[in-house]
Amino acid sequence: MTPTLLVLDADPPPRLGRLTGRVRIVHTDARHLAERLPEADVLLVWDFTSRAVRQAWPGDGPRPRWVHTASAGVDHLMCPELAASDTVVTNARGIFDQPIAEYVAALVLAVAKDLPRTLEYQRERIWRHREGRRVAGTRACVIGSGPIGRAIVRTLKALDVTTALVGRVPRTGIHGPADLDRLIARADWVIAAAPLTEQTYRMFDTRRFGVMQPSAFFVNVGRGHLVDEEALAHALTQRWIAGAALDVFATEPLPGDSPLWGLPGLIVSPHMSGDTVGWRDELGSQFLELYERWAAGRPLVNVVDKTRGYVPGH
Amino acid sequence: MTPTLLVLDADPPPRLGRLTGRVRIVHTDARHLAERLPEADVLLVWDFTSRAVRQAWPGDGPRPRWVHTASAGVDHLMCPELAASDTVVTNARGIFDQPIAEYVAALVLAVAKDLPRTLEYQRERIWRHREGRRVAGTRACVIGSGPIGRAIVRTLKALDVTTALVGRVPRTGIHGPADLDRLIARADWVIAAAPLTEQTYRMFDTRRFGVMQPSAFFVNVGRGHLVDEEALAHALTQRWIAGAALDVFATEPLPGDSPLWGLPGLIVSPHMSGDTVGWRDELGSQFLELYERWAAGRPLVNVVDKTRGYVPGH
Repeated sequence: MTPTLLVLDADPPPRLGRLTGRVRIVHTDARHLAERLPEADVLLVWDFTSRAVRQAWPGDGPRPRWVHTASAGVDHLMCPELAASDTVVTNARGIFDQPIAEYVAALVLAVAKDLPRTLEYQRERIWRHREGRRVAGTRACVIGSGPIGRAIVRTLKALDVTTALVGRVPRTGIHGPADLDRLIARADWVIAAAPLTEQTYRMFDTRRFGVMQPSAFFVNVGRGHLVDEEALAHALTQRWIAGAALDVFATEPLPGDSPLWGLPGLIVSPHMSGDTVGWRDELGSQFLELYERWAAGRPLVNVVDKTRGYVPGH
Repeated sequence: MTPTLLVLDADPPPRLGRLTGRVRIVHTDARHLAERLPEADVLLVWDFTSRAVRQAWPGDGPRPRWVHTASAGVDHLMCPELAASDTVVTNARGIFDQPIAEYVAALVLAVAKDLPRTLEYQRERIWRHREGRRVAGTRACVIGSGPIGRAIVRTLKALDVTTALVGRVPRTGIHGPADLDRLIARADWVIAAAPLTEQTYRMFDTRRFGVMQPSAFFVNVGRGHLVDEEALAHALTQRWIAGAALDVFATEPLPGDSPLWGLPGLIVSPHMSGDTVGWRDELGSQFLELYERWAAGRPLVNVVDKTRGYVPGH
């Protein structure tokens, strides 16, 4: 029998044409997801901004045996019913590692060299010499020991930054949560690249920003809810830390009236750190590879631990 | 006899206090340089923005036996009379290498990740997702095979950029001028880090910008006169190249009415690429080390080839 692939998307994913004749492909939007779930063997969550799966999953009828999300994080689709089910969940592990690492390096270097202010002065045609900072020899603390966090560490090390990596459990080369406060207290760069789980929800709160150095710069390329945004706003306004860059937010797109747009020292970007030219093709190819495994009855890779909320690492 | 150290400066250099009692230190500005030159054994050009030495050197009377400039370039002080004399000229080779390399990496990454536009959209509170570019796998051509150019190559290589280095003469790992046009024609990043000499004067002209790819980004961290600024303005306006960043200019400070401030795709910075916190102390310490050599009659290092206009390399 031809399996049914249900695709939750806004724009159709590339590469799926290769499955023509072998798979019945049904596209759906968030509104119709619930009624179409029972007929699906596989669900491809291409629109990774949608929280529709969390809402549609609980309910009656059969459920897909496999859900793949074209994202690294799975917080937008995970719900207790899905976690308790036999359905396998896979993610886009690997696609975003190097792009996000480069993005973090771009922020670190741009801030060290005072590039945002250079652009401001240029607009006003002001020639004002300043001293930049050397990045080599500074200290970074990267929170999140998955492939993205590890890629960030590799890239910053290549720039001679001294790095510490913090994960859920201590292992060789990776600090556990017990070391976190001590490490962020002496870091020049605090980089959040963790998945959103119960343990990481708002882990960057008033207390944590209070521990950081006044010269510290905070970056979030993980998930918006890792950060208590009000606490960050307070820390920036009170100059507890020197600056921050957020690529992810509790509410996306960030509403036009959010105070975050205008906070002193805060760089706001539209959830783009992992998205480089060609990324949609890569995500499409990755799903196809996984599909071939699934169709052949071979074990899937990138399988998410549904209770932890991420793919367990090496 | 106590030697006389003449210091051309605006702000007094740090660290010279260590010479108290051993050296007679005379500070001068550009206006009084000519009248004080005959009494100096050593001239320290601390104000490296001044062209006063070129003007004051020709003339009567004794001249210092050693001139040190707290800069990498020597074009601001070199004149035929100084070049033909027995006076030794040394420069600040080494101090600026890593800072400038980091600065170039900051520009390359910021442009690849579209950071300037992100800052613009933020000002207007616009959430507009774009795709960045991956820096790994792109090609850079670095012109200038001295320690600064080589440091740029090292840093870009650490980011997995494919690099080519061009110098005055071909050597192992370094291309000669004959390869230049071919290399810049396929480079994503063209980085000028050469000294200003007769050979490099306006080497980036209409023809050279015409050879580059429409997607190419040009960076000048060498000297302003490496570039025909009108030709660059034309190339940017006509979209021959995608963008450029100039840290150095034919006239510095860049006049407020210069069209360069507002050119599409051009980032203007105030000759700061090599200047990081602590650089003045490093320059002061470097001069002191050279002074101890000179006082002990040992050979100086960082000796400039006065006919070539730079310290010959390894």
